[in-house]
Amino acid sequence: MKRHLISAGDLAKDDALLILDTAEEMARVSERSIKKLPTLRGRTVVNLFFEDSTRTRISFEAAAKRLSADVINFSAKGSSVSKGESLKDTALTLEAMGADAVVIRHSASGAPHRLANWVRGSVLNAGDGTHEHPTQALLDAFSMRRRLGNLDGRNVTIVGDVLHSRVARSNVLLLHTLGAQVTLVAPPTLLPVSVGTWPCEVSYDLDAVLPKSDVVMMLRVQKERMNAAYFPSEREYSRRYGLDRDRFAKMPDDAIVMHPGPMNRGMEIAAEVADSARSTIVEQVANGVTIRMAVLYLLLGGETA
Amino acid sequence: MKRHLISAGDLAKDDALLILDTAEEMARVSERSIKKLPTLRGRTVVNLFFEDSTRTRISFEAAAKRLSADVINFSAKGSSVSKGESLKDTALTLEAMGADAVVIRHSASGAPHRLANWVRGSVLNAGDGTHEHPTQALLDAFSMRRRLGNLDGRNVTIVGDVLHSRVARSNVLLLHTLGAQVTLVAPPTLLPVSVGTWPCEVSYDLDAVLPKSDVVMMLRVQKERMNAAYFPSEREYSRRYGLDRDRFAKMPDDAIVMHPGPMNRGMEIAAEVADSARSTIVEQVANGVTIRMAVLYLLLGGETA
Amino acid sequence: MKRHLISAGDLAKDDALLILDTAEEMARVSERSIKKLPTLRGRTVVNLFFEDSTRTRISFEAAAKRLSADVINFSAKGSSVSKGESLKDTALTLEAMGADAVVIRHSASGAPHRLANWVRGSVLNAGDGTHEHPTQALLDAFSMRRRLGNLDGRNVTIVGDVLHSRVARSNVLLLHTLGAQVTLVAPPTLLPVSVGTWPCEVSYDLDAVLPKSDVVMMLRVQKERMNAAYFPSEREYSRRYGLDRDRFAKMPDDAIVMHPGPMNRGMEIAAEVADSARSTIVEQVANGVTIRMAVLYLLLGGETA
Repeated sequence: MKRHLISAGDLAKDDALLILDTAEEMARVSERSIKKLPTLRGRTVVNLFFEDSTRTRISFEAAAKRLSADVINFSAKGSSVSKGESLKDTALTLEAMGADAVVIRHSASGAPHRLANWVRGSVLNAGDGTHEHPTQALLDAFSMRRRLGNLDGRNVTIVGDVLHSRVARSNVLLLHTLGAQVTLVAPPTLLPVSVGTWPCEVSYDLDAVLPKSDVVMMLRVQKERMNAAYFPSEREYSRRYGLDRDRFAKMPDDAIVMHPGPMNRGMEIAAEVADSARSTIVEQVANGVTIRMAVLYLLLGGETA
Repeated sequence: MKRHLISAGDLAKDDALLILDTAEEMARVSERSIKKLPTLRGRTVVNLFFEDSTRTRISFEAAAKRLSADVINFSAKGSSVSKGESLKDTALTLEAMGADAVVIRHSASGAPHRLANWVRGSVLNAGDGTHEHPTQALLDAFSMRRRLGNLDGRNVTIVGDVLHSRVARSNVLLLHTLGAQVTLVAPPTLLPVSVGTWPCEVSYDLDAVLPKSDVVMMLRVQKERMNAAYFPSEREYSRRYGLDRDRFAKMPDDAIVMHPGPMNRGMEIAAEVADSARSTIVEQVANGVTIRMAVLYLLLGGETA
Repeated sequence: MKRHLISAGDLAKDDALLILDTAEEMARVSERSIKKLPTLRGRTVVNLFFEDSTRTRISFEAAAKRLSADVINFSAKGSSVSKGESLKDTALTLEAMGADAVVIRHSASGAPHRLANWVRGSVLNAGDGTHEHPTQALLDAFSMRRRLGNLDGRNVTIVGDVLHSRVARSNVLLLHTLGAQVTLVAPPTLLPVSVGTWPCEVSYDLDAVLPKSDVVMMLRVQKERMNAAYFPSEREYSRRYGLDRDRFAKMPDDAIVMHPGPMNRGMEIAAEVADSARSTIVEQVANGVTIRMAVLYLLLGGETA
């Protein structure tokens, strides 16, 4: 294992599998009602959030606390960062305060990478701009594996606003590493120009792709980004790319539905699909804590692979 | 005991007494300078606050930490809730993250009740709209009992803006259960239309009621709600419903004065009355931590009654 | 030791040395990779911040947690304080909740002193108006001593906006107590009228002072306070009072450079000076946690001197 987790694309297959296997052990421990492990007692994890993301922040906070680490939340709003302090000086501050790990969410792609140059502790990317969100991809892969077993040769379809989605990019890179085949489905205006270099297929026809999908992952529609430049209307988007009951029926009987949350019920996904037994949406949240426990354990407390 | 604490009105007399007796034990433990009990080690309490309420939040936080629970603060402002996430999806998220208890403050009456349908953990209502604030009523009853002994047959007068007060409603319901007689005193415009169905008396004449009161509880005036529709002016309110020195003198010698805080000194209560030896206002804050320890202990860690 | 730490000016020499010596022990413990001491287990430290100051808040939070105390963060924004609650009622609330120490940052000079009248726990001033910031002065003295040994007879030059700087005032008072000679260098408009009564020299000529300085401490320029009334322009300020490479070369070879952070690189200090081996800026942050551990230990858990 490297010292940091910046990008799902950087993970070698062995490292990715080690994280998933470690998460499996963490899940088994939790199932035995052991709610707290002493592994990281005395270690300090700093949540450095330049963007609001309560869900991701409390998922990392819960994971760190279950490993007995101390957690310090640092919201960059109203801090000296807003008085013009550079990321480097913030990094030196956290370093000097003895942070063993810094979990960073930042609107600028690449910020976690730069941070890693300046601190001795581990840097965990909790989402940077439109770049990556590696723990999301790991928890998604973990959720798939728990439902479907081995990912090798599985067909995963990711649907929606790929252009603005770090979730999509991290998933494509990690799933490719793990041997799955990924197909992106999106309106042409919501695909990045670089998509031709990604290790995946692209389709514009959701209905054609559904019958051969083992996994259908719906992305969140960022309503504020929906406008004439990208797509005519929410209704039209929902009609062509939403996962409603009829489309759900086209999926194989054992295929699963995923969503990183928070959902727009009735928009990209129908409520009854989101709540069906084949949806992993609630499990994904629980698995998020488990995967983050595994990553913190491996980066801060575990043996190196 | 039920699994949740949603409403003071739901509490059977035995349950209410069990909470008060447990709080008495907690207070005795604290008095022996034992500042931390291991009871809830490894349990996670989430403070889910859709409205700002620093006092109530830190009271629950202090109570949970004294029982060695982990506390995660979730302020709904700026969270995905503000991106349109439903309360149900927030609930499923907290559930999946392994929250053993969710302490919820919400501007909508009934939100804690709905939340309780969606989570396995315990739900503690920390104030919902104009509906209820049961731990406030419990800490008030505990404060009265510590000063006056048994509440049976005691006369409690609650004065002020009953219309907007969840504190008043929860107190009326709990005090009735505990055998006290409650009289509400308020301008007619600041009483709810439903007050005729509440188990209490109503009076418009504070001076007539004071001499037979064992307890006088002043409610906070919400200045932003004071307008011509409700009452002519702050000054007129203070003159007719404020507890000043003269009115204080009309109370029996052993009667006590209460206020849920924060006070408008000089408005609904004179500073010297608030600071007198017969005021329980500071004790109420300390008792708030104690009662919340008792409730968390009984809901999460204790034997069922 | 007194029970509170309100002012660096109140510290007797013996008390100041006891804090520095205790911090030295704390630093040695940390260097042995012991990350957590059980000293304050079960004690509650409340961070009561009426002004944003993430750096100072997390420094105190990290210090308290390394001593195993529970920490409750109380940001006064959006709290009942903003509904008009008085500092006294806030104090009584924290007192009743069992706070063993209150760390207060407030825009009004003197607020910590008033707070200390109302609580039984210890009050630690984390910055009040333009008055004092005693733990900053202590961490600065600690940083100097670790680099230079004894402070007796050392020449310390403090440069910049003294008028608005509680850091400058606390440093002057503490350094005088510890036997150092302090020279303030600032534009006349950025010196307080009372400076004539301070135990220090004043100069307007930075270049003349540098060659005889053992320590040069640059203050942060508050850009929002820079205007025609105080000084013509940022550029002019930087030209006359900034510590650039040429000025740095005028300092003795073993003299050190300090800054309380956050810096305006290129404004009051050149980046290469800030990052040089003779800069203590990063150490100051680490020493901040260490000094605050020492103060919390002595006020809450240690033997009295």
